[in-house]
Amino acid sequence: MDGNSEVRITLIGTGTIGLAFAAFHLTHLKSPSQITIFDTRPNLSQYVQDTLPGFFPNGTTTFDISKINIAASLKEAVRNTNIVQESGPENLPFKKQLWSEIEQYAPKDALLWSSTSGIPASQQAQDMKDKTRLLVVHPYNPPHIMPLLELVPSSSTSPEIINQTQGFWTKRGRVPIHIKKEITGFVSNRLAFALLRESIHLVNEGVVTVSELDSIVESSMGPRWAVAGPFKSYHAGGGAGGLEAFFKNIGGTVQACWDDQGTVNVGDGWEERVFKEAKEAYRIVDTAERDVITRRVLEVIREEKEKKEG
Amino acid sequence: MDGNSEVRITLIGTGTIGLAFAAFHLTHLKSPSQITIFDTRPNLSQYVQDTLPGFFPNGTTTFDISKINIAASLKEAVRNTNIVQESGPENLPFKKQLWSEIEQYAPKDALLWSSTSGIPASQQAQDMKDKTRLLVVHPYNPPHIMPLLELVPSSSTSPEIINQTQGFWTKRGRVPIHIKKEITGFVSNRLAFALLRESIHLVNEGVVTVSELDSIVESSMGPRWAVAGPFKSYHAGGGAGGLEAFFKNIGGTVQACWDDQGTVNVGDGWEERVFKEAKEAYRIVDTAERDVITRRVLEVIREEKEKKEG
Repeated sequence: MDGNSEVRITLIGTGTIGLAFAAFHLTHLKSPSQITIFDTRPNLSQYVQDTLPGFFPNGTTTFDISKINIAASLKEAVRNTNIVQESGPENLPFKKQLWSEIEQYAPKDALLWSSTSGIPASQQAQDMKDKTRLLVVHPYNPPHIMPLLELVPSSSTSPEIINQTQGFWTKRGRVPIHIKKEITGFVSNRLAFALLRESIHLVNEGVVTVSELDSIVESSMGPRWAVAGPFKSYHAGGGAGGLEAFFKNIGGTVQACWDDQGTVNVGDGWEERVFKEAKEAYRIVDTAERDVITRRVLEVIREEKEKKEG
Repeated sequence: MDGNSEVRITLIGTGTIGLAFAAFHLTHLKSPSQITIFDTRPNLSQYVQDTLPGFFPNGTTTFDISKINIAASLKEAVRNTNIVQESGPENLPFKKQLWSEIEQYAPKDALLWSSTSGIPASQQAQDMKDKTRLLVVHPYNPPHIMPLLELVPSSSTSPEIINQTQGFWTKRGRVPIHIKKEITGFVSNRLAFALLRESIHLVNEGVVTVSELDSIVESSMGPRWAVAGPFKSYHAGGGAGGLEAFFKNIGGTVQACWDDQGTVNVGDGWEERVFKEAKEAYRIVDTAERDVITRRVLEVIREEKEKKEG
């Protein structure tokens, strides 16, 4: 897997996450990959050919279908690979069984990645002989567009494997972040769900509607945090004194908001109002349009930051 | 204030918020305004001429300084105006006194707006005879760039005044959102601080560093929410079944994250680590660079959405 030789990547599972990873690797021309896909889905080859073009803007991007192998068995899929990325069902017995089989067939130095959004590597690896090569590589949806990958190793994962994984994604212009504890929901979902909880509380209290809340985020935090995350933003807000000065100035307001924070739970009864308002405001969201705009936003930020770095 | 005649706006207070509003109005050529500025600051005229150019990218944008009156007294500042926007100190006695004076001098139909981030209109209006014209118009910093304005009326504010205020900002391409209750911190800060609280918790627990947390947000939620707010995003995540299907699928994970949410408070002892990491990562943030990129991001989103709307 060193130098500039083509990397062989095996993708297990062909849901939207698995195929989005295929779309990303196939179109990343600077660091091309040989993709092998395996799934127990019937007519897999036809399915992939029909579905994959939907991951490209307007279906116009061409990709080299000859770069994709469709494997007939798990053994065939992994026996000669550098990397296995698993995007199968979120089911612990399934994943445990899968990794212990993969371990039998795959080269001893292959990197083993799970796309799971919630099942820790330490649990997935329970039936493996060598637990050092498995870690969670959790994308942010949709992974062919969003730069983030949360790398969540178990305590058995070797530091060298974490390094190789970071190197792979960094080389491809992505943002792989090493999460140091196997914490519930990892980091990005925990952050987003904290804001979602307060959002639900405010709609449930009649302070704003679902679409008004979205407008607020789209015209304030969204664009701000696309450019500078929350700590950097508030550090800037404190001027020369940084985050410390920020808290000296308005720590009282921050704490007042925290004291008044909503603590709605799933099943508390807010659902009817919130689901109804979302349905009325958005019906079915055009994700293709959203993805086109998101790509442009990410391009612009990259361009501007590169300009600055010269 | 009807039709296309020039609107006369009086800005009270020349901190960064007041001057940023001046910068916005002066450069909004489609809906030009006559700006009057008042502050008790010494050498006000020179100060404004020196400071205002800093609000434009690279200091290159030209604006018509003749559009600015510097008033010698509060009475002179408001006696012939359509709108008063107050961006003075966050101090209730000051604001109560200010509005009761303004009420004596300003035309009876002038709109009265406070930029406060925390003092409700109902409290500010306590000494006014006519409480119907005052509401909070809270910008997101910096107001010459960010589109959001939170309109927070008191129960005495007249619906017609709220409408006129929304019309004013909508005409200027901004996003004025009517907040229906005088809730602590209004909406945008409550949402941002909820996410900040969880961010501090995760850094304090050693899960990620300050700059890793910012990278996570910049490469996931930030760009996503710049394009589609949290409800719209999760409604899309549920496919044809919308937000309801989203919660049916992963409501358990959402609740698990909520159950595990951090509840740090100001003064709990996380400060040393978090402030230190922020200082080491960022020293003093170049907000000019951040603002250039933010403008471009907002432009791109506007362009793409207009393309779509045809």
